Amino acid sequence: MEKHAAASRVLITTVPFGQVDSKPLDLLNSAGARYLVNPLNRKLKEEELADMARDYQVIIAGTEPITRRVMENAPDLRHISRVGIGLDSVDLVAARERGIKVSYTPDPPAPAVAELTLGLMLSLLRGVHQSDRTMRAGGWRRIFGRRLAECTVGIIGLGRIGKGVVRHLSGFGPRRILAHDINPDHAFAKANGIIWADPEQIYREADIITLHVPLTGLTANMITAREIGGMRPETLLINTARGGIINEEDLAAALRAGQIQAAAVDTFLCEPYAGELAALDNCLLTCHMGSMSVDCRTRMEIDATAEAVRLLRGEPLEGLVPEFEYDIQVAKRCPRAVQ
Amino acid sequence: MEKHAAASRVLITTVPFGQVDSKPLDLLNSAGARYLVNPLNRKLKEEELADMARDYQVIIAGTEPITRRVMENAPDLRHISRVGIGLDSVDLVAARERGIKVSYTPDPPAPAVAELTLGLMLSLLRGVHQSDRTMRAGGWRRIFGRRLAECTVGIIGLGRIGKGVVRHLSGFGPRRILAHDINPDHAFAKANGIIWADPEQIYREADIITLHVPLTGLTANMITAREIGGMRPETLLINTARGGIINEEDLAAALRAGQIQAAAVDTFLCEPYAGELAALDNCLLTCHMGSMSVDCRTRMEIDATAEAVRLLRGEPLEGLVPEFEYDIQVAKRCPRAVQ
Repeated sequence: MEKHAAASRVLITTVPFGQVDSKPLDLLNSAGARYLVNPLNRKLKEEELADMARDYQVIIAGTEPITRRVMENAPDLRHISRVGIGLDSVDLVAARERGIKVSYTPDPPAPAVAELTLGLMLSLLRGVHQSDRTMRAGGWRRIFGRRLAECTVGIIGLGRIGKGVVRHLSGFGPRRILAHDINPDHAFAKANGIIWADPEQIYREADIITLHVPLTGLTANMITAREIGGMRPETLLINTARGGIINEEDLAAALRAGQIQAAAVDTFLCEPYAGELAALDNCLLTCHMGSMSVDCRTRMEIDATAEAVRLLRGEPLEGLVPEFEYDIQVAKRCPRAVQ
Repeated sequence: MEKHAAASRVLITTVPFGQVDSKPLDLLNSAGARYLVNPLNRKLKEEELADMARDYQVIIAGTEPITRRVMENAPDLRHISRVGIGLDSVDLVAARERGIKVSYTPDPPAPAVAELTLGLMLSLLRGVHQSDRTMRAGGWRRIFGRRLAECTVGIIGLGRIGKGVVRHLSGFGPRRILAHDINPDHAFAKANGIIWADPEQIYREADIITLHVPLTGLTANMITAREIGGMRPETLLINTARGGIINEEDLAAALRAGQIQAAAVDTFLCEPYAGELAALDNCLLTCHMGSMSVDCRTRMEIDATAEAVRLLRGEPLEGLVPEFEYDIQVAKRCPRAVQ
């Protein structure tokens, strides 16, 4: 094993990478870095990553589990550069103990996630996916829907993405927007006519409920059978945030029983997902594509790669994960990062 | 056959009717009218309608062909009350010759059609329907999409619906909106930053092309292989207007060859549709559901029924089809109405 040759090597675990725009790979080449793009071409399991990461200084990472065990197996690791925003997959405490820097790209994905969320809302409201499926099977099913203009929209998590959703909703004039955030931006709410509400009121009153919170110990299993029990039969539930925030088994049971009308799910506890939601007519599924617009994805890849190049050159990082992210994870360990 | 008993009878051909809200049926009951709701529970063919309409004074109509032959078979017919806006299905000239009044409800469907159009745009941009289909088949396909904010949107027909689409787009900030209308509303265009363009420029430059024109002799087969040939490989084409405006065979060939990226089609030349578009992965299909939101559909049914009741009571009608609709049909006979 050539220990020395590995000293300036970068492992890129997130795939696809550099495919639509090769600029991230160009950046690495210009910096003289040697890199490997995840040859399994899918999200890695902990074991696989622990094997693969052994000789690398930097991981340009997706959402695969970067646990203490992975770090113990990668003695040269100095930097985890997340392509994206969620940190539930990274054991921040273990990283800090070993002096591994962690950076992320919180801004670029937000616009793409917010747009996808609107698309899922409108599809659910009108049964677009169900009608399409019926026609492909040779049938014809005219579905009565509802308009956004008639709906109360409930937003849990009014950060970058939640605010984007509000901006997109402005051209539709929904009846009301209820929102909840642990750190409420009162100026934004006032400017956009948003009504603050606790989650229970949102569950009870919203026609459409959309989640835009990170996965932390506080939000894991935030929506279970109990919370769904507080919703109305017309409720449409959307998760473009993270798998694990809604309990998947409880959601499937509720959809099967018609306890709520429909759901759209982009993120799953275990990805690639192959569970019971995929068999339900009233569940619209997408493959964790929130950030998958060409422009946003390219921006994320470039930002995360530029950060890796800075580290390799000994320059200061610009996207270091702020202290509060460590506090959140310490306060209540994320269920996935510690698995 | 009881000719007299049939004298105050109303045939409702459009289905479903009075299902979500029974007010339209209540109106007919209050007026003492006897009515029949289309027992075949699907769009009628000319023959079927000619048989069924024989003894009626009023037809509360969907989009089935109300031809000269149908009218010849219905000697008592005095009023065709269209639930909706399109008149391509009604032979207006034949109606006028026989003194049959024709009314319609042009306003209520527009908001629902505009919202569906946005939903189809966002689904096409992100491949939502394709990803959902893959997951149901046990796969996992992360599709790279585009954001509306990066797109030039081309709108052909800037009337009630086209303007609604512009309002919904306002919260997304598309790169440019190009529009074409035979009767341009310059004030609206100026207020909304719209660039007027001829159809050829729209075909050439727009990432998304959406049609909001009626079906007339001028718009039938407006988009054929020739026009599609002027579009780019990234083009997304949406038809929530009327079947027959885009040539379905030419569209299917273009989608199969990847000449344009994808299409969403809500309206078909022959409905229920069961043609080759339903076999194409890059075509999103819905079952003529543009107006199918509970609020809009209810409004349309109530308005069309109130109009029928006015006629039966000898009161003046409020939604008579304006003269220009006759002129359009005379100028160039609609291909369907004369079939």
